[in-house]
Amino acid sequence: MNKLSPSSITQAHTLIKPHIHRTPVLTNQTLNRLASTPQPASADQEPEVEPAHPRFRFFFKCENLQRIGAFKARGAFHALLRLIEERGEDEVRKRGVVTHSSGNHAQALALAAHTLNIPAYIVMPSISTVSKIEGTRAYGAKILFSGSTSTEREAVVADVQNETGAILIPPYDDANIILGQGTTGLELEEQYIELVRQEPGLSAHASPSLDAVITPVGGGGLNSGVATFFSDKRTTVFGAEPSYQGADDCRRGLERGERVEAVKSLTVADGLRTPVGVLNWGVISDKSKVGGVFAVTEEQIAAAMRLVLERMKVVVEPSAVVGLAVCLFNEEFRRLVEREGGEEGWDVGIVFSGGNTTVEAIGKLFS
Amino acid sequence: MNKLSPSSITQAHTLIKPHIHRTPVLTNQTLNRLASTPQPASADQEPEVEPAHPRFRFFFKCENLQRIGAFKARGAFHALLRLIEERGEDEVRKRGVVTHSSGNHAQALALAAHTLNIPAYIVMPSISTVSKIEGTRAYGAKILFSGSTSTEREAVVADVQNETGAILIPPYDDANIILGQGTTGLELEEQYIELVRQEPGLSAHASPSLDAVITPVGGGGLNSGVATFFSDKRTTVFGAEPSYQGADDCRRGLERGERVEAVKSLTVADGLRTPVGVLNWGVISDKSKVGGVFAVTEEQIAAAMRLVLERMKVVVEPSAVVGLAVCLFNEEFRRLVEREGGEEGWDVGIVFSGGNTTVEAIGKLFS
Repeated sequence: MNKLSPSSITQAHTLIKPHIHRTPVLTNQTLNRLASTPQPASADQEPEVEPAHPRFRFFFKCENLQRIGAFKARGAFHALLRLIEERGEDEVRKRGVVTHSSGNHAQALALAAHTLNIPAYIVMPSISTVSKIEGTRAYGAKILFSGSTSTEREAVVADVQNETGAILIPPYDDANIILGQGTTGLELEEQYIELVRQEPGLSAHASPSLDAVITPVGGGGLNSGVATFFSDKRTTVFGAEPSYQGADDCRRGLERGERVEAVKSLTVADGLRTPVGVLNWGVISDKSKVGGVFAVTEEQIAAAMRLVLERMKVVVEPSAVVGLAVCLFNEEFRRLVEREGGEEGWDVGIVFSGGNTTVEAIGKLFS
Repeated sequence: MNKLSPSSITQAHTLIKPHIHRTPVLTNQTLNRLASTPQPASADQEPEVEPAHPRFRFFFKCENLQRIGAFKARGAFHALLRLIEERGEDEVRKRGVVTHSSGNHAQALALAAHTLNIPAYIVMPSISTVSKIEGTRAYGAKILFSGSTSTEREAVVADVQNETGAILIPPYDDANIILGQGTTGLELEEQYIELVRQEPGLSAHASPSLDAVITPVGGGGLNSGVATFFSDKRTTVFGAEPSYQGADDCRRGLERGERVEAVKSLTVADGLRTPVGVLNWGVISDKSKVGGVFAVTEEQIAAAMRLVLERMKVVVEPSAVVGLAVCLFNEEFRRLVEREGGEEGWDVGIVFSGGNTTVEAIGKLFS
């Protein structure tokens, strides 16, 4: 097993580079200005408390423009390439790989397996939308249907493994997946330095470095990977979650000092409905690696999504904007940035994790 | 007055460069594949006619990512900078500039005037949406309201001119506006060459050059400007219009050999509801400059918009995708590309003209 270290992420990047996009990093003056303006006092705030006045300069890592429309392509390619290195191409090709997912990991593994000519079995809940099923099938994966509970899904995975010998590639609770997702942080830092070198006005710092990076936390693959990459640097990594129906399991777990093992939330951020994984929790609960996890409401997610679509003109899925929503609306986080960043403010990398939504879903969210 | 020539566009580009974005040119394998697949036969086709089988490689010039969200920033900066050159800064600053527009030209002129410290008066129909009025006012322009007919608008413009001496900067029927919009073509060609040099697989040609460029046609500023730029090159420029309620005035005018002077259409492509201007018609009706204008239905515009949002993950307004819709769905155009491009196919530049829409408008279009 690979160690969760920055150098393993550099190695992972070399390995997956031919297969993934180096997605762009965008900046946006309007969003910087909005986030750097104190929020209007809301009804639930104590009237004597002044709203925070943080200064933000954002650097958006657009994994919505990644292959299959989400960062998950990184982890899937990395896990499969490592598996082939370890077990040999013949064995992996003979046995194939299997996973259960109704979302972006399914398509990511299907793409990686198709590219590397390995059979893939994807277990999906039979209630999945037709477009997701077709999207996964389009990469040549075999789809198997299950019920929607994790017990039902795992039973079908076990059946596939018994019949075919297929090797499980889990969606997030896996070192090679974490290291693959961590390459997002590596590119973000490289691209930040390139951008600021070209246009020094983008940073207010004399010697530019990212003060913070914030990513969504679902199973925690992306956040723990990015935190691993920055673990030997001065950049602080934060996580963001939806608060709806307890989807902020990671934030709550940190509060009580113990991982929350189950979540049942129908938050609009559908990529973030899962509890954080065991390995992921190990990284995220390490105070030297992750500075904190903050939560936002469904309304705040929708408001952030509107800004990204209407002002930045890029399509993101709701899960992708929870980090931006924290910067715009979470007063606890905004006070932290005001306190730590002062007049100069912070250069903040925000990972847009994916863009797999539909025009109908956008319409429904704002109807 | 400046001549409508390619070298005037090069000069225009030098002048406006500090003020505009060099917007990205994107490629997309999925859209290339979809457009290069014969369409399923539809009910209104003659059954014995085989659907066309053109081969497309698209290069999308993303003016939806331009300042104020549309190419109009180019023309507005160019017209205002030329006016200052010709009349002197003092006179223009004393008199100010005026235009009537409910759309992107209003915001573009407001931005240019604000940047160059010139007073701007914008006449908008009083029924304009609040967001458009606020967007224009945010740049410091004075808004004056009028009725929605052109007679009512022109009366208010005349009043402003009488009172203030403000100089009219028309939205499209003006040589300096046309030359400014033409800089879109100049950048598109430069960026196409850069892209293909970096990744030769993007073109199928031994010595890469764009076979065609297609842009929307409303008033015709963009199309006539781009056609002027390419007038001494082998690239053929085409136009695209909505057919709904006669919004394809330019196509119909070419058919009957005479400019159509009035249009009354409520096509969803709201930037393309105007008839083509006189100067613009002079360029577009010149067979040596524009190879033809093709029309698409409202359904085809929506289908193209869905593909751009869901597959490319960029936000475009309906007017922006008529060119792509022609390539995907117009059998007359597709037969032309099959015939002219043969097995090798065509490298086609598509201008996405703007991205100023709202999440509510997207929702309504697909509800």
